[in-house]
Amino acid sequence: MLKKSFVVNGVNQTVIVDPEASLADVIRKQLHLTGTKVSCNDGHCGACSVVLDGKLMLACLVKMSKVKDGASILTVEGIGTPEKMHPIQVAFAVYGAAQCGFCTPGMVVSAYALLTSNPNPSREEVRAWLTKHHNACRCTGYKPIVDGIMEAAKVMRGEMKLEDLQYKLPADGKIWGGKYPRPTATAKVTGTLDYGQDLGLKMPANTLQLALVQAKVSHANILSIDTSEAEKMPGVFKVVTHKDVKGKNRITGLITFPSNKGDGWDRPILCDTKVFQYGDAIAIVCAETSEQARAAADKVKVELEELPAYMSAPAAAADDAIEIHPGTPNVYFEQKVVKGPDTKPIMESAPYVVSDSFYLQRQPHLTIESDMGFAYYDEQGRLTIHSKSIGLYLHLYMIAPGLGVEPDKLRLVQNPSGGTFGYKFSPTMEALLGAACIATQRPVYLEYDYQQYMQYTGKRSPFWLDIKMAADKDGKLLAMEHDYLVDHGPYSEFGDLLTLRGAQYIGAGYNIPSIRGRGRTVATNHAWGSAFRAYGSPQSFLASESLMDELAEKIGMDPLEIRYINAYRPGSTTPTGQDPEVYSLPEMLEKLRPLYKEAKEKAKRESTPENKKGVGVTIGIYGCGLDGVDGSEADVELTANGVTVYNTWQDHGQGADMGTLGTAHEALRVLGIKPDQIKLDMNDTGTAPNSGPSGGSRSQVMTGNAIKNGCEQLVAAMTKKDGTFRTYDEMVKEGIPTKYHGKWTASMNSNCDENGQGKPFAIYMYGAFLAEVSVNTKTGKTTVEGFTAMADIGKINNKLVVDGQMYGGIAQGIGLALSEDFEDIQKHSTMLGAGIPYAKDIPDKFDIYYFENARENGPFGAAGVGELPLTSPHVAIVNAIYNATGVRIRHLPAYPEKVLAGLKEMKPA
Amino acid sequence: MLKKSFVVNGVNQTVIVDPEASLADVIRKQLHLTGTKVSCNDGHCGACSVVLDGKLMLACLVKMSKVKDGASILTVEGIGTPEKMHPIQVAFAVYGAAQCGFCTPGMVVSAYALLTSNPNPSREEVRAWLTKHHNACRCTGYKPIVDGIMEAAKVMRGEMKLEDLQYKLPADGKIWGGKYPRPTATAKVTGTLDYGQDLGLKMPANTLQLALVQAKVSHANILSIDTSEAEKMPGVFKVVTHKDVKGKNRITGLITFPSNKGDGWDRPILCDTKVFQYGDAIAIVCAETSEQARAAADKVKVELEELPAYMSAPAAAADDAIEIHPGTPNVYFEQKVVKGPDTKPIMESAPYVVSDSFYLQRQPHLTIESDMGFAYYDEQGRLTIHSKSIGLYLHLYMIAPGLGVEPDKLRLVQNPSGGTFGYKFSPTMEALLGAACIATQRPVYLEYDYQQYMQYTGKRSPFWLDIKMAADKDGKLLAMEHDYLVDHGPYSEFGDLLTLRGAQYIGAGYNIPSIRGRGRTVATNHAWGSAFRAYGSPQSFLASESLMDELAEKIGMDPLEIRYINAYRPGSTTPTGQDPEVYSLPEMLEKLRPLYKEAKEKAKRESTPENKKGVGVTIGIYGCGLDGVDGSEADVELTANGVTVYNTWQDHGQGADMGTLGTAHEALRVLGIKPDQIKLDMNDTGTAPNSGPSGGSRSQVMTGNAIKNGCEQLVAAMTKKDGTFRTYDEMVKEGIPTKYHGKWTASMNSNCDENGQGKPFAIYMYGAFLAEVSVNTKTGKTTVEGFTAMADIGKINNKLVVDGQMYGGIAQGIGLALSEDFEDIQKHSTMLGAGIPYAKDIPDKFDIYYFENARENGPFGAAGVGELPLTSPHVAIVNAIYNATGVRIRHLPAYPEKVLAGLKEMKPA
Repeated sequence: MLKKSFVVNGVNQTVIVDPEASLADVIRKQLHLTGTKVSCNDGHCGACSVVLDGKLMLACLVKMSKVKDGASILTVEGIGTPEKMHPIQVAFAVYGAAQCGFCTPGMVVSAYALLTSNPNPSREEVRAWLTKHHNACRCTGYKPIVDGIMEAAKVMRGEMKLEDLQYKLPADGKIWGGKYPRPTATAKVTGTLDYGQDLGLKMPANTLQLALVQAKVSHANILSIDTSEAEKMPGVFKVVTHKDVKGKNRITGLITFPSNKGDGWDRPILCDTKVFQYGDAIAIVCAETSEQARAAADKVKVELEELPAYMSAPAAAADDAIEIHPGTPNVYFEQKVVKGPDTKPIMESAPYVVSDSFYLQRQPHLTIESDMGFAYYDEQGRLTIHSKSIGLYLHLYMIAPGLGVEPDKLRLVQNPSGGTFGYKFSPTMEALLGAACIATQRPVYLEYDYQQYMQYTGKRSPFWLDIKMAADKDGKLLAMEHDYLVDHGPYSEFGDLLTLRGAQYIGAGYNIPSIRGRGRTVATNHAWGSAFRAYGSPQSFLASESLMDELAEKIGMDPLEIRYINAYRPGSTTPTGQDPEVYSLPEMLEKLRPLYKEAKEKAKRESTPENKKGVGVTIGIYGCGLDGVDGSEADVELTANGVTVYNTWQDHGQGADMGTLGTAHEALRVLGIKPDQIKLDMNDTGTAPNSGPSGGSRSQVMTGNAIKNGCEQLVAAMTKKDGTFRTYDEMVKEGIPTKYHGKWTASMNSNCDENGQGKPFAIYMYGAFLAEVSVNTKTGKTTVEGFTAMADIGKINNKLVVDGQMYGGIAQGIGLALSEDFEDIQKHSTMLGAGIPYAKDIPDKFDIYYFENARENGPFGAAGVGELPLTSPHVAIVNAIYNATGVRIRHLPAYPEKVLAGLKEMKPA
Repeated sequence: MLKKSFVVNGVNQTVIVDPEASLADVIRKQLHLTGTKVSCNDGHCGACSVVLDGKLMLACLVKMSKVKDGASILTVEGIGTPEKMHPIQVAFAVYGAAQCGFCTPGMVVSAYALLTSNPNPSREEVRAWLTKHHNACRCTGYKPIVDGIMEAAKVMRGEMKLEDLQYKLPADGKIWGGKYPRPTATAKVTGTLDYGQDLGLKMPANTLQLALVQAKVSHANILSIDTSEAEKMPGVFKVVTHKDVKGKNRITGLITFPSNKGDGWDRPILCDTKVFQYGDAIAIVCAETSEQARAAADKVKVELEELPAYMSAPAAAADDAIEIHPGTPNVYFEQKVVKGPDTKPIMESAPYVVSDSFYLQRQPHLTIESDMGFAYYDEQGRLTIHSKSIGLYLHLYMIAPGLGVEPDKLRLVQNPSGGTFGYKFSPTMEALLGAACIATQRPVYLEYDYQQYMQYTGKRSPFWLDIKMAADKDGKLLAMEHDYLVDHGPYSEFGDLLTLRGAQYIGAGYNIPSIRGRGRTVATNHAWGSAFRAYGSPQSFLASESLMDELAEKIGMDPLEIRYINAYRPGSTTPTGQDPEVYSLPEMLEKLRPLYKEAKEKAKRESTPENKKGVGVTIGIYGCGLDGVDGSEADVELTANGVTVYNTWQDHGQGADMGTLGTAHEALRVLGIKPDQIKLDMNDTGTAPNSGPSGGSRSQVMTGNAIKNGCEQLVAAMTKKDGTFRTYDEMVKEGIPTKYHGKWTASMNSNCDENGQGKPFAIYMYGAFLAEVSVNTKTGKTTVEGFTAMADIGKINNKLVVDGQMYGGIAQGIGLALSEDFEDIQKHSTMLGAGIPYAKDIPDKFDIYYFENARENGPFGAAGVGELPLTSPHVAIVNAIYNATGVRIRHLPAYPEKVLAGLKEMKPA
């Protein structure tokens, strides 16, 4: 141990440290400054950025033996506090630079280090700095961060007053449609918001630290599990195995279509008979410290009989493959599409027919934060599990039978979460936490390191797609056929639903009178499929939006124009036979047309043999909601000081707090209430009603309507005969209830039938994307130099939130197009390895245009937003690569070597 | 467990808590806000004061189940930070209101709560508030705190600018003799100084938490120790007993006089054959959490054969008492005094002879902080022990053989300490920490709760004294005889030295030509004797300064006048036959005379039958240093940025940091150096040389001289021929050493011989005390209404520090006189039970007058200060009680019931 003295944020500190400990760990776990976040622990993410002796450093890479005695350390806590924010922090808040907020403290520190060394940087210098220092953000697409830093610099240079930077409530008091900074912004920019890992450090002393014993193979029979040696290790309280799990020891997928050949009980909490994928949990070591738990986990002996591992849908679907779940075929679900007349004769007779095959990869969510949670018994004896769940009530029912706990004795709470983007639509560690808490009867805490998080949480399921389209001589679509396999990994949860998404989105946006297709869900031994932003649509659009370009080329039409003539107009129907609720696409494409032309000309002008430039365009569509009759609940209560809104609008980082506040404030504005009088009590099944999961861009619509409904009930109850409002005291005095249960249901919807036909969503989002790329023909590397999006997401609740969603979703599309994958379980289990985009990878020329067509069924006309930007931006890039080089990438991502291979193939021709 | 959300210092916090946990523990151990201190854990001390929902609360008494969801909590961290201090914090710093600083955060919070509810309080209102809210301070005597609060209030009311409150460096840059706030002041007033308990919370995760198995009887043979059940308890790593101690398992007293009948090896580290006093440590449970360690400690089974417990010196000295340490008589040391001609004939012939018997009680130190420490192996493999030790090198050699560690493999470090006042001159837990660290090879942390601290740390040793004095017809002293027993508890360390103090201080201040006396050291089974401010002199002066009043009365002289005529003047010698180095007492008494007269008249005027008022006067004297040839070392190093001073001037809270800085700055001032360029590297035997223990007011003299010497060597080395100074770079370039070893030795001293004669100290401090009391004749309660002190402590280094020492020492004298004791092991083991004085118990009329007679052997003329104020202030109070009521209290403390009993005895007469 070393006795180290240094000055942290101006305070002298002496602390006894392991010389091998990282500065980040010492700052967080010994100095208890939890503003500094740690995730990758490998220098990839920048969340742990601190200034050490005047130099910006990644604290996770600095060993304590290298920190000089007397060193000066600056963390986010030393830059500003909630009551005295630094201009950088103010700018981050008002420019929406903090979404999930997990990278934010590191970003703020990095920006501080930049602006104290270079007070007047250009935007490019800011972007280069963030890139150089590995400050990764997965939410914002970097643009709001760069904007914020540029504005903060003005204040720091004395060119702008801090007051002029700060948000000001408009005179009419209305925040709906404006740029009110999200309620958690201050906490996020000051590092005072406690995420799961921070709450973990603040647990009671009797909390056990958990470590998993995990499979290091992808498919095996379990012969024996021997915990005896581990039980004897220092600090070990108990080693929990499947034998300790009181219930069915299975997580149920719940929503299982009748035609599904599985029963949904395929996912073990702790493996008992088989290992189904790499990383599967076999035992949980519960010890006093995490180091002890990890050391003991290595001592658990597991005897396995290894089985053939099926690492892709085609492999698992092959005739000779054994059943991964004995008794259930690996191809366990099929979704047909039958719309309009038979396609066969049309395909035979149409003037233009094109077909192709595509593969969209296993995209990793790459949240900056990994996965962690904790469990304990609450004061009512309820097993209470805190996690990053974005489906609290959903998960409650998914894990209760497996744990053997009655649902009313189970309580789920979402911790502030450093990004999910959908992976937390699946339970990850919830049931493990529950099992360990039940077995030990002590509070328990579990944290996955980044590798564990990558290897043992769900991923976007790859689709293998064959697609064929027919058009008439004018380019009007006549028919479409498709056949796709969904690699859903070993666990079936929502696999059927995902397969249905293909039926809904392949070819969406265009009026296609005849469709025949089928999708099949395949169990494999690769990472299980979980939700991911725009769930099912990036796969679908890769096929149809690529093929539309191929069709246009065949016909000799411009890619934009073929889209324009086929886009939904009155009379069109979706692939599921539904009438669109609005028709935004033509106006979007009209708006896009001049920008597209200009981009094409620029590309042509700037192209060189070494750097070929090109332009690609796509449209994207996504429904808001769960399929069919979806609904939500929210409670609204008048209090002495204002109004409290209770809901489970879970937050990925997208801004559920702002969504709730903006909607509630608009609904309550007649009362003259101020935003800060509205208190949010969210994401705890112990206190808030079931608002449904936060996925499928449903929350603003469903929960927004429920909030509005609750608020309207309250306002009605408060309204006196003369039109004025009762005060809280008057309500109490008159015995009028102060709490109202808001509810809303999309009863106009219907589920899709066995032919994929129905009205699954009341509201859709519509968009169009324009990508401008440059391809280096020597390296094959593609750079996105500009990106423009058109978006109709209905009326906008909060501009900062929707901008953030759009920029961030498109940035994930850029990663999807060019760099991201989780194919190699080892190589792709780090942030860098899995291809996370840094600031340099996302263009600074990045524009969003909104078309605020009010939705009849949306609260105050709003639709959702989150999925839209990741429907098809990657295909716009793929199309642009083709436009630039003539190389069509069918198997994503478009790694440089693939582009290079394509270029080489072309040369002989 | 409860999920609680509240707002702490403006930050939203959610934390999972045990409903039975205290708010203080949650704030410190879960929210990691260590500015809030916890010590008594019983609502007695106020260190944990916080504002909860607008109300000042003792956080240790608030259970989490009672904290409302959404509550607002303000801790010291929320009031101000080092970089943005609140006016209260600035005022505390510049008024010297923070000495050890442990009560300070609570005081600051309390003051904040007061001034936000009452912006313009009177001094009495401030004192009443602090009393009501149990804000105890053991260092300052409250006056500097009240001063600070009154000034802060002016700033808060806008009547004074904050800048006008702040310290300003004088134009000549000189801080010696001024009011420079001590270097740790900012950290103390902002709650950012980490004490042992805070550092304990910042230890590495693999640190074991220790709990002691302690004796619940005072004297017993140990038959067996069974740890088997405890070893099986959750989280237990090891239970350490005497069998695990590698060395002699004894702490040696080191300084043992040849005539001592013991060998100094009487104190076990962990009891093996016997229990010697209540609380003795029998085993150490080492577990992952402190709760687990405590739970397992209850499971260790110790079989005892109880023996007669000797709880006082007379009981243990009785003929029929068995030997506490078999082989060593209970009366194990005797110190004679033989000065001048035989006293016997003088006593027979003198015109005035008086004699009486006195008892001074077992005064507890009542530091606000309890005792805690930790140990680990450093990077050089040295067993490193952090504690509150005020004798780092001393303790190193006292514990090394017992632990079986070579001294060069042992390193001792002092943590910032919340007061010691001498109890840490003894090792407390150092050897226990070392034994546990050796046995487990892991870092270990041990903390005593307040009861353990009271019961298992040393106390001031009671003296039982018989004294006789003779005077001539004019009141001139002719002779003195005394005989006293020292109850030193079971452990001999420094017991002989303490006994010698009686020879040095009984009758000190007066020229007494003939003295015969003896003191005997007795081993008992009550709390072992440790150092306590003014070590040995409060006992001595209780006898001689009480008897001087009795003599004056017999002669019919005024108590002040008899002191005046007998006080040291040229030609006088001390009881040890030494010539005083200065003669301050006559001038002090002259200065005191009009104040004394005025006080007497006031008392007479205001006395009523119910509240009798009176005045008492005493003189006090104390030597600066260890007996005989004492010395110290300090290193001084030129660095690129300034100068670093290395020493082990350990800090009780007295201001070792300021002592070092003030002395070094004065010695280096020729260089034009600023105070903040002088860095202090203190109190670590791994980095700093042996400055000797911090006791006996020796440090300013001994270490001050060593610092001065080191600085002078550096300045000489830096001086160029032209009288200008080399820079650091020039020194390095010229190859001139930059680090100098300062050293100083008081070689003019000599130890006292077997007759108590010698020149033990080069420098003495001189003082006179005037107490004004009011005695309620119905309740017997004495209130000190005014206190005046005259002090010659040589030239003053820092005015804030010496004021603080004087006020605080006298306040401890008031407690000693009226309320403090540690006799009843249970009842007296809490702060309240042991009689700590609160603000209401210390007068606001409290004046100090300095007589800055330069000392030839003091650095820049300085003497020490810390012991002087506790030499005899209690006797001034006892004399004042007599003056008021005619009741003489001979057995301290002067509890109301004793005064009442005295009043009742008088009535028949």
